[in-house]
Amino acid sequence: MTAVSERKRVTAALVVIGNEILSGRTVDANLPYLAMFLGKLGIRLMEVRVVPDIEAAIVDAVDALRRKMDYVFTTGGIGPTHDDITAASVARAFGRKLVRHPEAERRLLAFYPPERRTEARMKMADTPEGAELIDNPISVAPGFVVENVHVMAGVPKIMQAMLDVLEPRLVGGAVVQSRTLVVFAGEGDMAAGLAAIQDRYGDLEIGSYPFFRMDKPGTSVVVRGEDGPRIAVAMAEIEAYCASKGVETREEPTFG
Amino acid sequence: MTAVSERKRVTAALVVIGNEILSGRTVDANLPYLAMFLGKLGIRLMEVRVVPDIEAAIVDAVDALRRKMDYVFTTGGIGPTHDDITAASVARAFGRKLVRHPEAERRLLAFYPPERRTEARMKMADTPEGAELIDNPISVAPGFVVENVHVMAGVPKIMQAMLDVLEPRLVGGAVVQSRTLVVFAGEGDMAAGLAAIQDRYGDLEIGSYPFFRMDKPGTSVVVRGEDGPRIAVAMAEIEAYCASKGVETREEPTFG
Repeated sequence: MTAVSERKRVTAALVVIGNEILSGRTVDANLPYLAMFLGKLGIRLMEVRVVPDIEAAIVDAVDALRRKMDYVFTTGGIGPTHDDITAASVARAFGRKLVRHPEAERRLLAFYPPERRTEARMKMADTPEGAELIDNPISVAPGFVVENVHVMAGVPKIMQAMLDVLEPRLVGGAVVQSRTLVVFAGEGDMAAGLAAIQDRYGDLEIGSYPFFRMDKPGTSVVVRGEDGPRIAVAMAEIEAYCASKGVETREEPTFG
Repeated sequence: MTAVSERKRVTAALVVIGNEILSGRTVDANLPYLAMFLGKLGIRLMEVRVVPDIEAAIVDAVDALRRKMDYVFTTGGIGPTHDDITAASVARAFGRKLVRHPEAERRLLAFYPPERRTEARMKMADTPEGAELIDNPISVAPGFVVENVHVMAGVPKIMQAMLDVLEPRLVGGAVVQSRTLVVFAGEGDMAAGLAAIQDRYGDLEIGSYPFFRMDKPGTSVVVRGEDGPRIAVAMAEIEAYCASKGVETREEPTFG
């Protein structure tokens, strides 16, 4: 078994494609789902970009991120309409031709009866040359993978099904665990103590998030890291620090 | 009065700063709020980046976007704790020194009684040299502006109050209006007609968003543009097209 500290940190980025997110019309639900999903596999979501349905914007984002990250995921823009330009844009980002994928075409032909086999729908079989398909158990039209870029649907239900399909081929590193302590005091009253504890736990990430509950300030302190027992020790130190200041705390049930 | 077509397109980007968004722990609520808020002022949100609490990541995002966009907004990372590094990162992005802002310091000293005046809290008065403050009517610690970059709190209630403070100084262009037609048919059945209509209305943006309601596919068709009467004409064409195909439609009440 590889020791935790020797395991590689595996990174990912998400490109959310769509004017409807940038106009505020649709609230993206894929970011938090993907973050949790990847987190469980030991893959860290390190950056998200939301870009409009404009080829140059998609190409720039995909191209920048595929060079920096182990995995890139995209959501949105793979439907049949004129504003669905993700496949063409990803082809452009890789300098590949956009071609009709024979297996994708076969699936669409098998699914749609002749009167519903519009050219627009058949366009959903176009992928960059050499792409591998991602099965779509919900509505047939597949996503695809080119090198480290995974192109998925934007509809959350379909995106989630595609992630389940992808899961066996995603290779993560150490899983980040986290524990959260709710502290009933303002961030500023805790800051010096937290900073001192963070200094002694360089391998952990201690985050501090203010909230207001019934107009009183509070702080969620989140300790994240790869080593559960070490997190427990740091948590105990934070609890002791709070107790020494007469501040009430409560551990939040861990989720994700 | 300037004709709509002569008015400048004014663009904006948002940088969401914080590990808690990238871990999926916290769902960002600032993107849709900012998008709608700016939209009403005639400022178009063109890109969003979510980055972790890592200086190089914040610097890269701010620096890339401030050069491409009229306005850049950031949310998060301006509190008192060790993981709040936005001010230092923005200073770095502009090659400016991080200095204690005298007016910000005065406000914090006036607000916090001596026993709560921690050095951590006073750090919230540090801004890049030459920054202008953004008032914080909720919790005092201000945001700030450097050139076209507007640094705001991450807590939605505070971010929203800061936007209200900023509103008089934000100069927009033509306001984008939108209307939505709910079409009770799959996207692929509408795609050819929509594409043909889009071709004839190059000044409008016709977006098509699939949904499932009681397991039946539907499509929200959104027409966006600067010219209301022209949007109405395009909408009527889309309705007529749907009617010609025997497809039921319903206009959705406009929001935002």
